[in-house]
Amino acid sequence: MHSVYITRRETFNAAHKLWQPAWSDEKNEEVFGACANKNWHGHNFTLYVTVCGVPNPETGFVMNLKDLSGLIRREVTDKLDHKNMNLDVPFLEGIMASTENVAVVIWEILAPLVEGYGATLAKVKLVETENNFVEYFGGKPPF
Amino acid sequence: MHSVYITRRETFNAAHKLWQPAWSDEKNEEVFGACANKNWHGHNFTLYVTVCGVPNPETGFVMNLKDLSGLIRREVTDKLDHKNMNLDVPFLEGIMASTENVAVVIWEILAPLVEGYGATLAKVKLVETENNFVEYFGGKPPF
Amino acid sequence: MHSVYITRRETFNAAHKLWQPAWSDEKNEEVFGACANKNWHGHNFTLYVTVCGVPNPETGFVMNLKDLSGLIRREVTDKLDHKNMNLDVPFLEGIMASTENVAVVIWEILAPLVEGYGATLAKVKLVETENNFVEYFGGKPPF
Amino acid sequence: MHSVYITRRETFNAAHKLWQPAWSDEKNEEVFGACANKNWHGHNFTLYVTVCGVPNPETGFVMNLKDLSGLIRREVTDKLDHKNMNLDVPFLEGIMASTENVAVVIWEILAPLVEGYGATLAKVKLVETENNFVEYFGGKPPF
Amino acid sequence: MHSVYITRRETFNAAHKLWQPAWSDEKNEEVFGACANKNWHGHNFTLYVTVCGVPNPETGFVMNLKDLSGLIRREVTDKLDHKNMNLDVPFLEGIMASTENVAVVIWEILAPLVEGYGATLAKVKLVETENNFVEYFGGKPPF
Amino acid sequence: MHSVYITRRETFNAAHKLWQPAWSDEKNEEVFGACANKNWHGHNFTLYVTVCGVPNPETGFVMNLKDLSGLIRREVTDKLDHKNMNLDVPFLEGIMASTENVAVVIWEILAPLVEGYGATLAKVKLVETENNFVEYFGGKPPF
Repeated sequence: MHSVYITRRETFNAAHKLWQPAWSDEKNEEVFGACANKNWHGHNFTLYVTVCGVPNPETGFVMNLKDLSGLIRREVTDKLDHKNMNLDVPFLEGIMASTENVAVVIWEILAPLVEGYGATLAKVKLVETENNFVEYFGGKPPF
Repeated sequence: MHSVYITRRETFNAAHKLWQPAWSDEKNEEVFGACANKNWHGHNFTLYVTVCGVPNPETGFVMNLKDLSGLIRREVTDKLDHKNMNLDVPFLEGIMASTENVAVVIWEILAPLVEGYGATLAKVKLVETENNFVEYFGGKPPF
Repeated sequence: MHSVYITRRETFNAAHKLWQPAWSDEKNEEVFGACANKNWHGHNFTLYVTVCGVPNPETGFVMNLKDLSGLIRREVTDKLDHKNMNLDVPFLEGIMASTENVAVVIWEILAPLVEGYGATLAKVKLVETENNFVEYFGGKPPF
Repeated sequence: MHSVYITRRETFNAAHKLWQPAWSDEKNEEVFGACANKNWHGHNFTLYVTVCGVPNPETGFVMNLKDLSGLIRREVTDKLDHKNMNLDVPFLEGIMASTENVAVVIWEILAPLVEGYGATLAKVKLVETENNFVEYFGGKPPF
Repeated sequence: MHSVYITRRETFNAAHKLWQPAWSDEKNEEVFGACANKNWHGHNFTLYVTVCGVPNPETGFVMNLKDLSGLIRREVTDKLDHKNMNLDVPFLEGIMASTENVAVVIWEILAPLVEGYGATLAKVKLVETENNFVEYFGGKPPF
Repeated sequence: MHSVYITRRETFNAAHKLWQPAWSDEKNEEVFGACANKNWHGHNFTLYVTVCGVPNPETGFVMNLKDLSGLIRREVTDKLDHKNMNLDVPFLEGIMASTENVAVVIWEILAPLVEGYGATLAKVKLVETENNFVEYFGGKPPF
């Protein structure tokens, strides 16, 4: 039997700003533009988590999606939803809240937990707007 | 010739919170739930502005969409995009930033300006998430 | 102050078939085509419920969306989700399960309950596929 | 029993340009901008046709969607799909191919034909891009 | 010249349930939850089939999309659309109708047929709801 | 630190036809069907450009999306938007304007320019309709 990939979508709505404290205000505005607005802005983020594995012969499941959804909500999106990513989220403390960095942190939280269900984390995709999204594959070069 | 309705979509990404200063913290949390988070949260808002009128016989246009888009951006979305709706937006000062109230304020800004182009504002639709949106028709009961 | 319209989206996944018991098999197949398949088929239904009213001056809300969502789930979508519309749903008993008829029944369930929150039901929109949807306004002719 | 509204979505992909032959090249470019490109441009158009009526008690249908889809394809979208709206479409001859005008022409084609099925045409919505669409209600003011 | 990937989207609407006949009712309900409803439920499934190859120098095509669409409809979606996946589909007989398993079966049907057109099947993606989808690459680990 | 993938979406609306000048009219119509219409047709194309690299420790960015967006618009979509792909676009001269071929040409334009920003082009995805899209990875076999 062969490896199959399943994806669960979850959402969260959060505020953030892009701000490098080691820089002057001018440099922050030059590099980050409107994203550096001091009083924050926000997004409806959409998170896609992909795990892979051989389907269980009795259930036909790589992993029960109720478990995957519960895991993502409990460990990730419940802690981000209706929050300020710069101020309210312990696992983002000290981290520049770019979509790239947030996707990597989410991978690091979920990868060991997914293993506990006998599956393997394959991809974290974080959509910030209809025009911008980030994908992380744990550092492996998929393409 | 008969009245035709044209709609322009624009977007903005903003932070806000729902907070009634006349109330206790407890009451704010009870009524507004996660939306009352003190450090704000945010959304990708989508704004649809509908105007109506008889198409011009030479252009076939109710109103040139370049003009309508320019008007919405200059007067509304440029002032909301990458901003905090509670702190940064002059036309929302002193207004509870519910989607309902923001839609009404946008109507009040745009209605007289659309008239200047020989068209009539018909609807403001403001989408906060894939699950929630507000429509305002200037107080007229469309249905 | 003027009437504003707010809409909540909810979803349910259900099986159904279109079958008129007063007719022969041949007539059912002729009229309903593949929708008459005896062993059922199914859809991801999307339900949009629109209510209107004057926003409360303290909250800025026509109606708290948590209440509206709870009402729709408890009275409508929890009873339809992962069910067979022809066999499992008390409020559809004896009713031809066309999207038209289901939308009307949902209106009849929700209209008096929405009144209890000081708002007025304005529209029920039921989307069956990306190509087909039904809207009901309580019999009033909106346009 | 009360009036219910059903909508069918159909699509077509076509080329067009906006060009007023009574005007100079300069005026065409000033008013229509890139849409006046002499060698045309094109769009994936999406057409939503809404009809209303009282559902038939035996079928639960306002109108059989197979009939409505067939009508729209045969009379409208088959004649527009993979065509040049300025050169190839008899029912658009001599008409400035703005989205407004095309929506009105589609209404005029479909309204009498829908009557033949015992239903009433209620709305034609023509989507040109994700940012622009037109609605026509036969000249009646819906809102 | 290099390999290019083309994807065709097709849809089908079907009923199914998740039920392991070797288990008790209680265990089925515990594992599959609402998906085990005895009278079935259903979905609008969306199927994306990706094939790859070097574009033909005369046509610019990896494979004519009319051929790919015809193949998918004739061999796969016509046999699933408006059907019960547990009862009506010969190629799913004896197979637990999880999205994972259905995606693998579709791969096995299409892979040899695509070869007949000089292309290679690269991915089958089956979307069950807006929140859940499955991807299968023939057992190869893409990432 | 590990490689992360970021994607920017841009759009353009263009006319084209599929026509092989070395062939007879009959063969063109047989192979390309409606896409061979002499007076062209058109589409709303959506372009997704994916680049990868290690996020900069100061900005958290693989590449500033303002730069990526500016690059795509200046070099690619500004030259395609509201144009005829067969007549108006220097970089498509002499090339059969299939979606496959256009995606490969876009890769060849962007790959060296993205290198100039310290990132690597990973994927070009070109969506022609909701049913058809093409992906190109520079000839590397991703899966």
